[in-house]
Amino acid sequence: MTAPGPFQRALLPEGLRDDLPPWAEHEAHMVDRLMSVAAGRGYRRVAPPLVEFEDSLITASGQGQGQSQSRSQSMFRLLDPVSQKMMAVRSDMTLQVARIATSRMAGQGRPLRLSYAGHVLRVRGTQLRPARQFRQAGVELIGSDALEADLEVIALAAEALTDLGIKGLSVDLVSPTLVPSLARQLALDEPTTEMARRALDAKDIAALAGFDETVRDILTGLMQAAGSLDSALPKLEQVPLDGQAARIRDTLVTLARALKDRVPDLKITIDPGECRGFEFHTGVGFAFFAPHVSGELGRGGRYQVACPDGGQESAVGFSMYLDSLLRAVPVPVEHPRIYLPFGTGQEEARRLRSIGWRTVYGLVSVSDPAAAARAEGCTHLYEHGVALSLTADDEASEE
Amino acid sequence: MTAPGPFQRALLPEGLRDDLPPWAEHEAHMVDRLMSVAAGRGYRRVAPPLVEFEDSLITASGQGQGQSQSRSQSMFRLLDPVSQKMMAVRSDMTLQVARIATSRMAGQGRPLRLSYAGHVLRVRGTQLRPARQFRQAGVELIGSDALEADLEVIALAAEALTDLGIKGLSVDLVSPTLVPSLARQLALDEPTTEMARRALDAKDIAALAGFDETVRDILTGLMQAAGSLDSALPKLEQVPLDGQAARIRDTLVTLARALKDRVPDLKITIDPGECRGFEFHTGVGFAFFAPHVSGELGRGGRYQVACPDGGQESAVGFSMYLDSLLRAVPVPVEHPRIYLPFGTGQEEARRLRSIGWRTVYGLVSVSDPAAAARAEGCTHLYEHGVALSLTADDEASEE
Repeated sequence: MTAPGPFQRALLPEGLRDDLPPWAEHEAHMVDRLMSVAAGRGYRRVAPPLVEFEDSLITASGQGQGQSQSRSQSMFRLLDPVSQKMMAVRSDMTLQVARIATSRMAGQGRPLRLSYAGHVLRVRGTQLRPARQFRQAGVELIGSDALEADLEVIALAAEALTDLGIKGLSVDLVSPTLVPSLARQLALDEPTTEMARRALDAKDIAALAGFDETVRDILTGLMQAAGSLDSALPKLEQVPLDGQAARIRDTLVTLARALKDRVPDLKITIDPGECRGFEFHTGVGFAFFAPHVSGELGRGGRYQVACPDGGQESAVGFSMYLDSLLRAVPVPVEHPRIYLPFGTGQEEARRLRSIGWRTVYGLVSVSDPAAAARAEGCTHLYEHGVALSLTADDEASEE
Repeated sequence: MTAPGPFQRALLPEGLRDDLPPWAEHEAHMVDRLMSVAAGRGYRRVAPPLVEFEDSLITASGQGQGQSQSRSQSMFRLLDPVSQKMMAVRSDMTLQVARIATSRMAGQGRPLRLSYAGHVLRVRGTQLRPARQFRQAGVELIGSDALEADLEVIALAAEALTDLGIKGLSVDLVSPTLVPSLARQLALDEPTTEMARRALDAKDIAALAGFDETVRDILTGLMQAAGSLDSALPKLEQVPLDGQAARIRDTLVTLARALKDRVPDLKITIDPGECRGFEFHTGVGFAFFAPHVSGELGRGGRYQVACPDGGQESAVGFSMYLDSLLRAVPVPVEHPRIYLPFGTGQEEARRLRSIGWRTVYGLVSVSDPAAAARAEGCTHLYEHGVALSLTADDEASEE
């Protein structure tokens, strides 16, 4: 992508951009690949609208007032002249998919496997994600609390990302309910819990000095049990946990082991004490990374979906963000294009397309077809039944 | 699609909807097909953002104040907190593609072939198009005034629509510059021209009674030269035109004949006196229809693109609207899905997918796998290496 000049810079609002060739096709192709991997595993596509009543886009189960408010502030709001109610442009699609699952698809059997892809818009970009519009694509598996469901979704995500050409993919597994559960068990008060949480997120052993010995041992143990699976798992198993906290730990251990079995090439790390960014998850959370690419490629985990009847369904999902992914995948190569001089038969053009060429048909007769072909960005010129390469000193190849 | 109940009705604003299985996948597939037909002919995809500064979305060459105003009123407006300028959600993508062609891609050779697909949003639906969000997809061929360019775009559109399974496709060719040119030549004043235009649009011969004989003969001739190509073309050639009007007529005749040659199966009608809906076209306009489907499936024609340097480029384009198309194509059939009971090997699952199955993996062990399979919408159950059909009395097929 060429850097925009001063004229181009003024054309679009900050954080919004035109995708040019070959990027626009490449991004669409990446979404198709994910949707196709998901479809192969029985995930059926749904497509909610870009705009909904604001209320539907900010309400979610298990989320505090703060989360709803920050969600609301991240969305562009629009007055609907038809209903006179406030609408908003979605800033995330997962709530929409949950709404579909629990309303229009409430009568369908469970578990329900859904996939989705679409654009989301945010009022402001962040340093990590300056784009204000980007594509989100993902899957949701709703109505099963089996660990096999978590495993299926993480394995699917890993396969889809690998399929896109990402090298050295890794996944980080977290257990955001572990620390809250521990805090309840150890009867820690709110400020102490918060201090523990901050120390764990920062991996700051010194910050644990003020805790009593039992608590400190446990928290230090969790902190040291972060890292690559092989070294961290034995440490995690030695942390002296019991009751619910032990069960949460065992879930993470079981899932991590099963994932290693299922996707042997995937690099797995665990961070059992980490909560940051997974505050609303009710089971294992995960995030995918690639070497030399800042930020996550995608993330997901287990959560509760609120139903209109007041009930809840357990679900596990995965979302990927195309702006991050585009930084991680190999630069797309434009497909070869062959220039057919004006007068080339339509049958001949069809035949060339049928064997994989992209044809560019000369609209008028020109004296220098090779120059015209180059002007139109063609890699080849079709002359006397032969595809002549225009880009390098390739041999002409008989067609 | 099932009719929504009262609860569902309240969920979304009027004119906005959730696309459910199998429709969401089907629509995405239709867009892919068009993009792929276009890519085969050298059209490269661009993707402008959903939202832009309002000014960029309403300014277009050759368009009067009225058109800009109606365009502006059809768009949702948003204040950009970053720039403090008004932005709008696009209600049409063609202006965006023209902007890209004349700015970021101004330095690329001509003709320039671009394709695009994306959602557009409108403040209000119309009777013919109640949806307020729909997908638009199309191509633009910019920088050539050759008739071969018009022919290429119309033929491409016909092939893409046929490829989508639309039966009995027809195209109506119009010549919106013919009547204005005639009016200038015959020195008709504005009210008389308007009267002629209305009579022609309504095919109302009686309304021509007040015109003088020469004008009446010409207008009657144009009116009678509307209809299917074989009967209308000879009549059109007999209409006593000269000068510019004759050249415009000849262009329509030549293009119609060439199109018949190039796409013999396409039903072609002409309506040389029609202007309605093509007011901003500068050459032949066209619209595609299918039997028993109200409204156009897509439309396009020749127009002028304004360049930032004050110049203009001649272009021809085609847009299709997925909401209309979905009414015209065969109802999608869901792909067969096979239920793999819990414990089926992952290798086995991969093998089944590699031969085309969509697999739905049992997340827990169940006593009645056939019931579980049905609950998850599967068409088949995998048992002892055999795919048992659950939907009809098909024979079990060995896999």
